[in-house]
Amino acid sequence: MERRDDGGEEVGSVTHHNSAEESGSPPLLCEHSPQQNEPTTMRTGDTYQPVPGEDKNPDMDFVNTSSKSKQSIHMKNRYADDGSSYPQLGPYFSDGQRRVDYVLVYDIEQPASVQQNSSIFGKNSFIQRLRRRLSSRAPLQPKEDPEIAAQEQQAHYHEDDKRLRREEFEDNILQTGLELEKEEKISGMGYLKIHAPWNVLCREAEFMKLKMPTKKVYEVKQGSNLVEKIRLYIHKITAPLHPKVGANQQENRKPLSHPFSREKQHLFDLSDRDQFFDSKTRSSIVHEVLKRTKCRRARYSMGITSLLASGTYVSGYPLHDGDIEGVDADRNDRRLLYEEWACYSVFYKYQPIGLIRKYFGEKVGLYFAWLGVYTQMLIPAAIIGVIVFLYGCATVDDNIPSMEICDPRNNITMCPLCDRVCSYWRLATACGTARASHLFDNPATVFFSVFMALWAVLFMEHWKRRQMRLNYIWDLTGFGEEEQDHNRAEYEFKVMKKTMRKEHKHDKNEKVKLTCTDRLPAYLTILMTMAFLIVVTFAIVFGVILYRISIRAALHMSTYPAARSNIRATVKTTAAIINLIIIIILDEVYAAIARWLTTLEVPKTDKSFEQRLIFKTFILKFVNAFTPIVYLAFFRGRLVGRPGNYLYVIGSYRMEECAHAGCLMELCIQLCITMLGKQLIQNNLFEIGIPKLKKMLQKKKPGSQQEELNKTMQRHEKDNLLCPFVGLNPEYMEMIIQFGMVTLFVASFPLAPLFALLNNIIEIRLDAKKFVKELRRPIAVKAKDIGIWYNLLRGLSKVAVIVNAFVIAFTSDFIPRLVYQYKYSPDGTMHGFVDHTLSYFNVSDFQEGTEPLDPMHLGYKVEICRFKDYREPPWSSTPYELSKEFWAILAVRLAFVIVFQNVVMLMSDFVDWLIPDIPKDISLQMHKEKVMMVELFMKEQGQRLVARDNYNQDNCASTSPAGESPTQPRSRPITHND
Amino acid sequence: MERRDDGGEEVGSVTHHNSAEESGSPPLLCEHSPQQNEPTTMRTGDTYQPVPGEDKNPDMDFVNTSSKSKQSIHMKNRYADDGSSYPQLGPYFSDGQRRVDYVLVYDIEQPASVQQNSSIFGKNSFIQRLRRRLSSRAPLQPKEDPEIAAQEQQAHYHEDDKRLRREEFEDNILQTGLELEKEEKISGMGYLKIHAPWNVLCREAEFMKLKMPTKKVYEVKQGSNLVEKIRLYIHKITAPLHPKVGANQQENRKPLSHPFSREKQHLFDLSDRDQFFDSKTRSSIVHEVLKRTKCRRARYSMGITSLLASGTYVSGYPLHDGDIEGVDADRNDRRLLYEEWACYSVFYKYQPIGLIRKYFGEKVGLYFAWLGVYTQMLIPAAIIGVIVFLYGCATVDDNIPSMEICDPRNNITMCPLCDRVCSYWRLATACGTARASHLFDNPATVFFSVFMALWAVLFMEHWKRRQMRLNYIWDLTGFGEEEQDHNRAEYEFKVMKKTMRKEHKHDKNEKVKLTCTDRLPAYLTILMTMAFLIVVTFAIVFGVILYRISIRAALHMSTYPAARSNIRATVKTTAAIINLIIIIILDEVYAAIARWLTTLEVPKTDKSFEQRLIFKTFILKFVNAFTPIVYLAFFRGRLVGRPGNYLYVIGSYRMEECAHAGCLMELCIQLCITMLGKQLIQNNLFEIGIPKLKKMLQKKKPGSQQEELNKTMQRHEKDNLLCPFVGLNPEYMEMIIQFGMVTLFVASFPLAPLFALLNNIIEIRLDAKKFVKELRRPIAVKAKDIGIWYNLLRGLSKVAVIVNAFVIAFTSDFIPRLVYQYKYSPDGTMHGFVDHTLSYFNVSDFQEGTEPLDPMHLGYKVEICRFKDYREPPWSSTPYELSKEFWAILAVRLAFVIVFQNVVMLMSDFVDWLIPDIPKDISLQMHKEKVMMVELFMKEQGQRLVARDNYNQDNCASTSPAGESPTQPRSRPITHND
Repeated sequence: MERRDDGGEEVGSVTHHNSAEESGSPPLLCEHSPQQNEPTTMRTGDTYQPVPGEDKNPDMDFVNTSSKSKQSIHMKNRYADDGSSYPQLGPYFSDGQRRVDYVLVYDIEQPASVQQNSSIFGKNSFIQRLRRRLSSRAPLQPKEDPEIAAQEQQAHYHEDDKRLRREEFEDNILQTGLELEKEEKISGMGYLKIHAPWNVLCREAEFMKLKMPTKKVYEVKQGSNLVEKIRLYIHKITAPLHPKVGANQQENRKPLSHPFSREKQHLFDLSDRDQFFDSKTRSSIVHEVLKRTKCRRARYSMGITSLLASGTYVSGYPLHDGDIEGVDADRNDRRLLYEEWACYSVFYKYQPIGLIRKYFGEKVGLYFAWLGVYTQMLIPAAIIGVIVFLYGCATVDDNIPSMEICDPRNNITMCPLCDRVCSYWRLATACGTARASHLFDNPATVFFSVFMALWAVLFMEHWKRRQMRLNYIWDLTGFGEEEQDHNRAEYEFKVMKKTMRKEHKHDKNEKVKLTCTDRLPAYLTILMTMAFLIVVTFAIVFGVILYRISIRAALHMSTYPAARSNIRATVKTTAAIINLIIIIILDEVYAAIARWLTTLEVPKTDKSFEQRLIFKTFILKFVNAFTPIVYLAFFRGRLVGRPGNYLYVIGSYRMEECAHAGCLMELCIQLCITMLGKQLIQNNLFEIGIPKLKKMLQKKKPGSQQEELNKTMQRHEKDNLLCPFVGLNPEYMEMIIQFGMVTLFVASFPLAPLFALLNNIIEIRLDAKKFVKELRRPIAVKAKDIGIWYNLLRGLSKVAVIVNAFVIAFTSDFIPRLVYQYKYSPDGTMHGFVDHTLSYFNVSDFQEGTEPLDPMHLGYKVEICRFKDYREPPWSSTPYELSKEFWAILAVRLAFVIVFQNVVMLMSDFVDWLIPDIPKDISLQMHKEKVMMVELFMKEQGQRLVARDNYNQDNCASTSPAGESPTQPRSRPITHND
Repeated sequence: MERRDDGGEEVGSVTHHNSAEESGSPPLLCEHSPQQNEPTTMRTGDTYQPVPGEDKNPDMDFVNTSSKSKQSIHMKNRYADDGSSYPQLGPYFSDGQRRVDYVLVYDIEQPASVQQNSSIFGKNSFIQRLRRRLSSRAPLQPKEDPEIAAQEQQAHYHEDDKRLRREEFEDNILQTGLELEKEEKISGMGYLKIHAPWNVLCREAEFMKLKMPTKKVYEVKQGSNLVEKIRLYIHKITAPLHPKVGANQQENRKPLSHPFSREKQHLFDLSDRDQFFDSKTRSSIVHEVLKRTKCRRARYSMGITSLLASGTYVSGYPLHDGDIEGVDADRNDRRLLYEEWACYSVFYKYQPIGLIRKYFGEKVGLYFAWLGVYTQMLIPAAIIGVIVFLYGCATVDDNIPSMEICDPRNNITMCPLCDRVCSYWRLATACGTARASHLFDNPATVFFSVFMALWAVLFMEHWKRRQMRLNYIWDLTGFGEEEQDHNRAEYEFKVMKKTMRKEHKHDKNEKVKLTCTDRLPAYLTILMTMAFLIVVTFAIVFGVILYRISIRAALHMSTYPAARSNIRATVKTTAAIINLIIIIILDEVYAAIARWLTTLEVPKTDKSFEQRLIFKTFILKFVNAFTPIVYLAFFRGRLVGRPGNYLYVIGSYRMEECAHAGCLMELCIQLCITMLGKQLIQNNLFEIGIPKLKKMLQKKKPGSQQEELNKTMQRHEKDNLLCPFVGLNPEYMEMIIQFGMVTLFVASFPLAPLFALLNNIIEIRLDAKKFVKELRRPIAVKAKDIGIWYNLLRGLSKVAVIVNAFVIAFTSDFIPRLVYQYKYSPDGTMHGFVDHTLSYFNVSDFQEGTEPLDPMHLGYKVEICRFKDYREPPWSSTPYELSKEFWAILAVRLAFVIVFQNVVMLMSDFVDWLIPDIPKDISLQMHKEKVMMVELFMKEQGQRLVARDNYNQDNCASTSPAGESPTQPRSRPITHND
């Protein structure tokens, strides 16, 4: 509250004049003394005021020094245009020395501007801000809206409020020791550039327990000699596949890392202080400080998140290292990444994971490492999948069932596929489908789905090991994921509201938090909405089914012969495309709804928000993507009834049957279209096309002078033009759904891994381009693992086993063929299998009104027609009942499911148990590192003790810690008595 | 190698005369100075020599000071008997001040003794040592064995060798700063008592990163108010159930713990140095030091493990706190444990886990905590089990199938149960079995097995949380299980042998280790032996089956009517008892074989030895215990064939059938007898009876003077009489097998949890008694979890789901009844079920020679007899083929398995996901602790910096670490410039 007065003094003065001359000793921070002696390039405000004594007493004088340093922000001339003097293009303060580690952007109150709005979290303000952000480079909007005009007065007031808040916040930032420079542009944007001086970096690195490399470098020895040789050999062979990034060369040497501590400074190599903390670390340190800094002007304490959410600052981001294009650009990490990673021409190379981590932080690094491992693992799966498919192609002519179907001598008359309008048909006309379905339904498929179940386990294991290895290389082994307890802005706002409500009532000192009762309405809404959305998905799938049924009947009725001949293909394909379009549209809708639902819930922390959002999005997207596929795999053709007693839905819609050769073929088409379509449209259109379109539109507007402007723009301005980083979740989600497609129904579509592989090769570079070129630099976040996504993957690969078991047992004809061959076949071959699967139907048993209108369609009178099912013939004592064969085959199918599931699960567990989670060489290295660290400390301690002893001997000062019994004298020299 | 000469000087001198006077400054170790000024009670050797300068430079002058301190062991008169002077009964050195923290026992060379043997690891020596240990209190054996006599000469030589090795080892111990006292008894036993002085304790505690309580105590706040109130209320209600152990009272306050560090001594409450490290910690510290100490006299470097294994020392153990019985005994922890824990009269109370941990260490504490949780969790399971059983009892009269069987009006003639000698029989005679089997085979059983599957998951979750809570209370949260890299003695011996072999050949500098090829023969042996043992188990089970078949046939043939009437019961019970006896005998045999196999493998570390041993023992014991049960549950009665076409094994043994009401009843009897018998015999006979017997035998020998002797004996002598601690694995193994019994076949025997509960209540106190009274005190081992056992439990509870699904589907009649009721029953009731399950057989279709000898046994001519199976009747077109009903029921059974397995697994996973592994209050507390620790350090650092600044200001000494750029001056006072 004392702050309010400080700020109050200066209401109205936008620029802070540089009046820091009173603290007579500017070069206190000795690290920057060289710069002080240089001819400075600063133009308006020449001095900057460090916080004296900050380094000494890091946290205890925050309060005391609160009022002394608020005038010390270096302020660039507000309306100065940089056209005249030499532009500072690098990410530095105007002195050209101090690096900009973080930038906060804010709107400046413009006399004619009415863009600001009053309520902090009101919907209006949100929309306004959105609009503002979208049109921030557009000319100011004319005053048209009368509602906005009416709010102008209030807006001005709140604009002042925001400014005051900013001022207080900036004061508080200064007190933490960070250095600031302000720059306000004529365009109405203000930039607050933040620099972290050496002592702040050291202090925060110590608090954050950042592991930094020490001087001690040791050689990483790999396993035994043979293994080492093989490794080197492989490395040599794959040399062209490795990206040309300098860091790769020193693979064999690794510095010992230790949490940074100012007391142990001598351990670290501080010869180049500018490079000791890299740009990623610097900005994450600044971000950490900013998160801690509070602003108390508002009714409740606001952190940087709240300030960003309330529009006090528009955005905050660290700066990229430099430009990508242009001959004059220096060789920075960003450019290196662009050339060696974010480029389609290097698609066949490994990713420079080390460099990605160095530039973007561990979390992003892990995503790309994971994506790389996944893509790599898809290669063998794709190869085997293609082989399985080719095996199907090669054996299609030896396949007795399809030969029998295609043989015109087997004159089998089938019952009509729909009521009245359809007529009897010959089985031989289904020849093409039967042959095609053999491609996907052959014994190799069973092998392939067992293989893929094990593949999934191997993938998980491989990733675990890779993750462990990265953890070791990145020195994360001791890092325990700290729960960041910074509450979300919405949560704090809600709590504040509740506190205010409570204050009127009774006890004040109890800590207010949101309880279940507070959240109950939100939970109920979520439950209802989720249920509703899932029902909507089901309804849409059902709608597509009805579409299929009715369109087929209509096409049957049509007299146009070409339509009739292509009925099946037409219906299948259009239905699959409709499904695809619906899936893609709903995907976007559901993502938005999930986000909205999660904000309703008001989760406490960002982490909790993320988890809940992922959970909801996953359920909705998963249901959306897989419902049509699951219907095709397990329900289609099963709820048909039988001739004479068909099952009808919604009045007279007879449920659709499968073509003779099982529904597998249709499942295949659906999967193929969904995978290809989703990837093509979502990736290529959404992720490549739309940004390109946007850019084209943008370029048109300012004409050719954009280029010119681009050259004169400073780093922070350029970065402000980029899109903000919104997290990795959408990327992960896309991949998880793809993983589901690859593993869940792999039994029906062995080409899925190939499609996924091709997609991912593009995906990696696409994402890389996005990160390097189109997004603002994300704040580096430490992470040991990929978190919840690992569990989802694990869950999916478990479900995949069961789903594949059911697909093989029920959707494919594998089991009936097997049973026929070993139990019913008279000669042990497949001859007669088709006949065996068809039951007899006496056409006189048709229900009235369902018999075909054109019974003579085939040219002869039909008395007995056949249908695909295991039922008793009309002449048995129990006509049309399920036959003994049906039950026997059902039992075998179920037994297969049990055996398959348990055997595969056992094998998976066995593989899991067999492969240690931590690679042996890594665990050895880790142990070695520990030992070396202890040795280093022992040595150091020894030296220190000797030093202290000597010192004590000289000084005779009693430094023994106050204890009740005297400790052993330290200074006694070691004597040997023999 | 230099050591050899040092030792060589003194060959032959057994006692170390106290010649430490040359190092003129005995009271160097100031902690013990008060004791130095007292009138000392030492009698023979008055001085002891600490290692000067040890504290200063703990590890670096081991080599330099090697020769100066070997005469400094305090030596009690060798043959002094303590009868005359006041006996030091407490665990102290003879000065009555220094605590004995560890004792090493060795044999003294006796002129007449020939017990020692030459080879270090030879079988002979092993047996000798075993015999010696068993008879260590028995009078010396007369020289009878000529072989031993021949080795006497060599033995003498080796006895010298041992002594020299001991001397060197003791020297090395002294150099680590530990203090020693020797005491040699006329009985031929030498005791080396080891005391750890304060500075050694501090040093080692720092190395071991022992977390010790700091001065800062904080209040543990539990959840919200309501939860807290409920907790307090429950605590009040259950107050009589809590053991009366003082530590319980301070539950709400917990000291902040921090790894001990001498530099941070001021953080800890060191007011009472004797109590700061408790006796458990002291001895584990000493043990740690001993493990590090090496003896290089032998051909290869030997640690304490090797010295113990080679018989240089007979045994080593820490001392118990005091006596249990006797009025004069003080109230020590051991006595408290005995009274409040290791006593049957407190069986209803909670265990004092905190005290157990304090006395025995974390690993033992976790075992008892786990046993407690398991027992506690068995209570609800037992209650539900009893209810399910009672439900069966209550509904037995309403059960239509058993009523139909018992109804004499249903005159159903059954086919004979064995060839020729058996005859037709009436179904009504199986009435009793049918009624009994309803007790275990009713719908409640299905519910119960679902319940037990979830119970198992809940148990695991509950334990995880409990473990986490204990970890928090015991300050283990940051403790990472360090791999103890101390190699096993056998391993080192083997490596040495290999090195020697290699030395003859070529490269010497390569580090020798055992590779796969070295171990290949062992692996092969293990594989063969394991396979052989499993085959033996199967063979024995098969033998029991043959016994059953033949005894039944024999009894049928006998003319004695009483025998015939009780045939079934007799056969079942005797077979079950035979099985039980075989299981118990094989259990012991297999345990020994597993141990032998593991020593063959020569694992590197103790941990690896333990794991491999557990793995083998588990497989063997599990197969042994469960083979007969699995046979009964799944194979009995299924491989029978059908009348007229029976299945025969080994010539003419017809496989046995089940009684009509399924095999569930027999399974039940087998389970009941196995569980009860195993527990009764193994626990009560082996664990109570035999020790009692031993004690009785022991007491007889020395007569009543034993009591007298007991009083004058010192602590270390008394402890030497106790059995050595052999680890917790046998205890765990017993419980795991029991857990398997409880969960795996719970569907067939709902009383299993009750039996287990009753057993465990005894088991806890039995184990407690053993630990407190009969075993030497184990060395405290830190452990965060129960290790491999958790995985085994998890695996068992997974397998249990599948096994229970199969038991319900196939062993019980649940599914056939269900199918009959909903599909075949004419009126929807169970009437007619019995008839439905029986097939018809025309007696004229008997194979020749198998028809009954006495077809008129029932008094009428039988033409059609019935048998239990679903087969076509003789008059159908395919007589005796499996009928449609069979396949339909089989399909339903299999479907049930799939549904049951997946639903229960899903529910388990859901429960697992729902319950967080870390209780919320604990995670909050842990977070709070972290924050408090940071605060404490910040405060302390601040104070220190201020102190240092002041100091620097006064001294003007440049203490800045050498850096290239000048750091900010530290002495500048903080100025405010406004």
